[in-house]
Amino acid sequence: MFDKQNISDAISVLKQQFGERLTEATSVRQHHAQSTTRMAQQLPDAVVFAHSSQDVSDILKICNRHKCPVIAFGIGSSLEGHVNAAHGGISIDMNNMNSILQVNNEDLDAVIQPGVTREQLNEYLRDSGLFFPIDPGANASLGGMAATRASGTNAVRYGTMKDNILALEVVMPDGRIIRTGTRARKSSAGYDMTRLFIGSEGTLGIITELTVKLHGIPEKIAGGICSFPTIKAACDAVISVIQFGIPVARIELLDALQVKACNGYSGLTLPEEPLLLIEFHGTEASVAEQAESFGDIASEHTESEFVWTTNTEERSKLWKARHDAYWASMSLMPGAVSVSTDVCVPISRLAECVELTRIDMEEHGIMSPMVGHVGDGNFHCLPLTMPDDDKMQQAITDFSKRLSKRAIDMGGTCTGEHGIGQGKQAYLLDELGDTVDFMRQIKTSFDPNNIMNPGKIFLS
Amino acid sequence: MFDKQNISDAISVLKQQFGERLTEATSVRQHHAQSTTRMAQQLPDAVVFAHSSQDVSDILKICNRHKCPVIAFGIGSSLEGHVNAAHGGISIDMNNMNSILQVNNEDLDAVIQPGVTREQLNEYLRDSGLFFPIDPGANASLGGMAATRASGTNAVRYGTMKDNILALEVVMPDGRIIRTGTRARKSSAGYDMTRLFIGSEGTLGIITELTVKLHGIPEKIAGGICSFPTIKAACDAVISVIQFGIPVARIELLDALQVKACNGYSGLTLPEEPLLLIEFHGTEASVAEQAESFGDIASEHTESEFVWTTNTEERSKLWKARHDAYWASMSLMPGAVSVSTDVCVPISRLAECVELTRIDMEEHGIMSPMVGHVGDGNFHCLPLTMPDDDKMQQAITDFSKRLSKRAIDMGGTCTGEHGIGQGKQAYLLDELGDTVDFMRQIKTSFDPNNIMNPGKIFLS
Repeated sequence: MFDKQNISDAISVLKQQFGERLTEATSVRQHHAQSTTRMAQQLPDAVVFAHSSQDVSDILKICNRHKCPVIAFGIGSSLEGHVNAAHGGISIDMNNMNSILQVNNEDLDAVIQPGVTREQLNEYLRDSGLFFPIDPGANASLGGMAATRASGTNAVRYGTMKDNILALEVVMPDGRIIRTGTRARKSSAGYDMTRLFIGSEGTLGIITELTVKLHGIPEKIAGGICSFPTIKAACDAVISVIQFGIPVARIELLDALQVKACNGYSGLTLPEEPLLLIEFHGTEASVAEQAESFGDIASEHTESEFVWTTNTEERSKLWKARHDAYWASMSLMPGAVSVSTDVCVPISRLAECVELTRIDMEEHGIMSPMVGHVGDGNFHCLPLTMPDDDKMQQAITDFSKRLSKRAIDMGGTCTGEHGIGQGKQAYLLDELGDTVDFMRQIKTSFDPNNIMNPGKIFLS
Repeated sequence: MFDKQNISDAISVLKQQFGERLTEATSVRQHHAQSTTRMAQQLPDAVVFAHSSQDVSDILKICNRHKCPVIAFGIGSSLEGHVNAAHGGISIDMNNMNSILQVNNEDLDAVIQPGVTREQLNEYLRDSGLFFPIDPGANASLGGMAATRASGTNAVRYGTMKDNILALEVVMPDGRIIRTGTRARKSSAGYDMTRLFIGSEGTLGIITELTVKLHGIPEKIAGGICSFPTIKAACDAVISVIQFGIPVARIELLDALQVKACNGYSGLTLPEEPLLLIEFHGTEASVAEQAESFGDIASEHTESEFVWTTNTEERSKLWKARHDAYWASMSLMPGAVSVSTDVCVPISRLAECVELTRIDMEEHGIMSPMVGHVGDGNFHCLPLTMPDDDKMQQAITDFSKRLSKRAIDMGGTCTGEHGIGQGKQAYLLDELGDTVDFMRQIKTSFDPNNIMNPGKIFLS
């Protein structure tokens, strides 16, 4: 579909403009096709380092003229092959566009470039009493987080990227630089173009500026943990928490295997049964009230004690199992690779979905610990396989299909926060059917030459 | 652009299918072009009463074949001429599609048809301990509220329609019935089609089912009021409230003229100076803590007392000025019509924007009380004019233009919650420029015959 000569012509023109800011070095190209999971790498033909929106506009104009694919690159922490160059072309490295342009304390917002990472932003904000809450685990770039509609452990309280962005600047395939909104807290001005670009995975345009919402750093943060005899008991407690309107900031579930892995990896002595980890934000009185309410609810579903604290060090200790979860999982099978799954279901179906999934894995001899952002009904199994075990890899692929179908059948989604990328194109069709046709119509009308991250979201 | 003969052919075909559920009676057509404000009525050629998604699909197929305009009608409470038949055609009355299909208590969601009104839904939910928070004032249909991205007094805590809808069923111009999402609390599955239809004002498709988020009815509701010497003092208090992260449920501002109007209309004796009305939701302890924090903040900006209560009757009395605000305004000029404005600015600019607007109105002899959802930076001036006063009507049109420009120049929007409709098409261009081209591309690709509510959002 894409002509090698066209790509090479585009690179020649780009070289004239960008000189040493364009490279064809293999190591750099490899780095820019980096995925955190098992996707096979597909290298771009060249990498250009953008320094401004105008750079991005110039690159897109050139690539559009030459029908050359373009993929935006942040830090490469996405999980569904989003930065792979499925059809070759140009990777635009956005990391030099990492300025924090404005912090508006009174309005609780900031204007930033897309290469700013969440840790960088929060470090910068530290003395302002404000913070940006979305935390997907990795120290991802905010541009990438917007492009994949990321969320993470505290979405139950603070929402996802779609809830924390007021406006975007986007460079369109024809090179035009547009603004999708303003700094107003709400607007009914035409179609919601901000939300259209959030989660579009670089297939419609490249985000070159973000106006993000900030939140006040809570006066107190309390953290706690509580073990439960079964997944169902833990999920029932979560449902009550949500129903009672307790404004938990985080509520995470580890299954028994994950707890076991954490005990081994981090030298902990937690009971090897399902564990809820909870965090409360608020005033001293409010977190105490929340913790008390949670304790009351938990005691109806478990005999284990709910332990909590507002002391920062002790809180870190209690939450150690969660922080080390990924590496603890990997330690279960030294040398293994993992395949992250990401379904999300209505919470009334969560326990059933997790249990059926556990049985499915046992039946197929798949080893996979599980962690869940259970306040949202979102959970991740992390099936492990040795890289050369083709049979297990196939078993995991089949399992992943069944898991998606199970979630969709329960009124849920194949992806809560990782996106479609290359890995879930067929599941997207299963989930939304004809709606995908209309997504494709938007894609075609904005990007008639299909240069924007081709091979993602849509089955070709 | 639209052929009268085509429209008449479409009506003939529709008559065959819908019989007495189609009417061409003038009184019904007038009702379906009803606007709450001063827009001149433009009647549809016929009204069809839909009973099901399949009905809507059939109507759209017929109308698309005959290139006949289609306008969805809820209760007619929109303010920018959204239901006017600018090019004639068919009004589809959605009021018979008013079933509540599911209430999922454990998941805090409900599946409803678009003709369900917010009061109907909350009445139905009363015994469940849950409620749907968005309150635009009018007892609007949820379908209409979604189509205009409505919000209202409690958006500062609960967000707008865009934040409270999980998924939609939509009938597309070609008659296909699509689903934009699932009951999962979050999703990264492709483009955010749910948010694209929310606020699309019936120009892309017709919403035939909504999956909405519900919230727990708060254990306690506290209401309070406090007078301030100046708008600036009131706004500064609001900024502190937001910065301190006090989770106010509502925080409304009336200007001195509005308070004066309320005193006269409702027999109140409030000091005739800017007034903040506040509502807190939470547990007994939490609302008390919030009220105390608010009182501390207020005392730094006013010498007036902050009066609050959790007693339902007393709370209604305190808030009476707000509830009667619209009719109190109208009583300032008996026989007058009003023109509602709807700008929204970053709250750091709110006091300045309101003050400059007040001076502008005084300079041009415009009488207009003001109410504001100030937690969001959104405020409404309600300029009054006698229906036959062409000079004042022109003055108000010019004023409205300047107000929009002022808000946009301050980083805000020409519409916080009313939408574009027929009234703000030029302002939308001022605000978002080339972005509107891309909105139009979506419109053209979904609706090549431009049958969906033509003459709205886009300047023709």
